[in-house]
Amino acid sequence: MKVLLVFAHPEPGSLNGALRDVAVNELEAQGHEVRVTDLYAEGWKSEVDRADFPSLAPDARLVPVAASKKAFETDSLTDDVKAEIEKLLWADVLILQFPLWWFSMPAIMKGWVERVYAYGFAYGVGEHSDTRWGDRYGEGKLAGKRAMLIVTAGGWEEHYSARGVNGPIEDLLFPINHGILYYPGYDVLPPFVAYKVDRLDEAGFETVAGRLRERMRTLQTTAPIPYRRQNGGDYLIPSMQLRPGLADPSASGFALHLGGAEVVRKAS
Amino acid sequence: MKVLLVFAHPEPGSLNGALRDVAVNELEAQGHEVRVTDLYAEGWKSEVDRADFPSLAPDARLVPVAASKKAFETDSLTDDVKAEIEKLLWADVLILQFPLWWFSMPAIMKGWVERVYAYGFAYGVGEHSDTRWGDRYGEGKLAGKRAMLIVTAGGWEEHYSARGVNGPIEDLLFPINHGILYYPGYDVLPPFVAYKVDRLDEAGFETVAGRLRERMRTLQTTAPIPYRRQNGGDYLIPSMQLRPGLADPSASGFALHLGGAEVVRKAS
Repeated sequence: MKVLLVFAHPEPGSLNGALRDVAVNELEAQGHEVRVTDLYAEGWKSEVDRADFPSLAPDARLVPVAASKKAFETDSLTDDVKAEIEKLLWADVLILQFPLWWFSMPAIMKGWVERVYAYGFAYGVGEHSDTRWGDRYGEGKLAGKRAMLIVTAGGWEEHYSARGVNGPIEDLLFPINHGILYYPGYDVLPPFVAYKVDRLDEAGFETVAGRLRERMRTLQTTAPIPYRRQNGGDYLIPSMQLRPGLADPSASGFALHLGGAEVVRKAS
Repeated sequence: MKVLLVFAHPEPGSLNGALRDVAVNELEAQGHEVRVTDLYAEGWKSEVDRADFPSLAPDARLVPVAASKKAFETDSLTDDVKAEIEKLLWADVLILQFPLWWFSMPAIMKGWVERVYAYGFAYGVGEHSDTRWGDRYGEGKLAGKRAMLIVTAGGWEEHYSARGVNGPIEDLLFPINHGILYYPGYDVLPPFVAYKVDRLDEAGFETVAGRLRERMRTLQTTAPIPYRRQNGGDYLIPSMQLRPGLADPSASGFALHLGGAEVVRKAS
C-alpha cells in the first residue's frame, strides 16, 4: 500500500519525532511505500489568505469558498497545495500525526487542512440539490481510502475517558475524524493515542512504540469507525437530520452518528 | 466594561467584518471600552516554534511546555505574545469571532491560542499534586471574566442540531468553550452562531445583526454555560472523573460536564 503521513511537531528530537520513525520503519518493513509531509520542516504556510489564490484580482473581495472553487477548477492553486493534493490522491492511507494541543490539532496542521481541502476536491463534490447534499460523509473523492490519527497527550487516559473532565477522547476527536476525514470519503480507523507522554521513560516508550507498530501492521484489517453514510438512507434530506427511530433512544451527541452501535447491541 | 474581540477573517469586506463592526459599535454605544486584535491584519504568526522562545539555546531540544514555562517565568516571551497577554488581563470580556472552518476555528486563531496561552498563565497554574490538579476548569488567572464566541457557518442550523449530520453545534464547540475558554477560568456564555451565511441577503443580514446587537447588550446578564468546576467536588482526584451518581444516567459525552442540567431537571 501507499501511505502518506502528515506530521506536525516543531522538534525532530521529540517523542512525536521518535514515534513517526517507529511508524515509518514498521510500514516500510511491511513492504508499504511511505511518504511524509513534515509541516514544520517544510515551512508550511498555515493561513488561508489572498496569496493562496494568485488568479484573484487585486481589487476583488476574497470569498474563500468561491476563490477555492475557481482556483481548483482552473488548476491555479499554489504549488505547495497542489503537491499535497497529488499526495492525497496517490496514497491508499492517510495518517495525521500530532500532539493534542488545546484539545485539537496544532494550528499548522489545521492550516494544512484548510488550504489543501479545496472546494471541488474535499468539499463541494457531487450533486447539491434539495434531494442530494453532495458526496460527503462516506462518499467523495477520497472514498475507498483509509485514514487514521496518531495523537500524543500530556494528560492521563482517565482524564479523557467516558466520565473524564476533558471529555471523552473519541468526542474530542470527532470534529477531525468525522468532520475532516470521513467528510471527503475516508474510512476512518480508531485513533492511536498515547497518554501521559510528558513523563515517559524508556520502558514506557517501548510499550507505546510496540502498540504503534501493531497498529501499523493492522492498517489494512482494522475495522473503521462505523459512521453512518450521509446518502445511505439514515438522514433526511435536505435537513440532514438522523431519521426518527434510528439510534438507541439513550444515545445523544456525536454517538448518534455511529451506525454500528445498533448492530453491535442487537448481536450482544 | 472592557472588551477584547479577537477576529480571524482574511477579508475586511466579509460578512464577518461587517458583524465585527456591528458588535464593536453596539458595545461602544453601551459605553464599553473595546479593543480588537485583528489576526490577519496584524500578520499574526500561527505556528509554535523555536522563534517563540528567544532564550532557548540554539542546540537545546525544543520541549514546548517546558520552553513556555521558562519564557513566561523569565518574562522572555515574544512581544506579540506579551501584548496579547496584557490585553487578556485588561479585558473583562473576551470575544473570539471566526468563521467555522472544518468544524473548528481557523488555523490563525488556533495559533493565537497556542502561542498566547503560556504555561503559568493559561495552564500549569496552581498546585499540582495527587490531591489537586491545578487551578483550571472554572479557576485560573482569568477567573471572574466572561468569554463568548461569535461564529458563522455556511451550513443550515438543522445540520448542526441535536440529530444533524454535522453533530450538535454545542458539542462541536465544546473543545473551544470548555477546553480553551473555561479551562483558564472564564465564565463562558452560550455562543452566537449565524447559519447559512453564504446566501445572506440584506434582510437576512439585518436579522443576524439584530440578534448580535441583542447579545452585545446582554453580555453582563446572560447566564454562562453551567460547566462543572473541576475543584468544586464533582470530580475524583487525580483520575479527574465525574463522581459516580452525578449526572443523569442517560447523559453521556460532553453533556456530563454540565452541572446545571440536574438542577434544571429537578426543578421542572
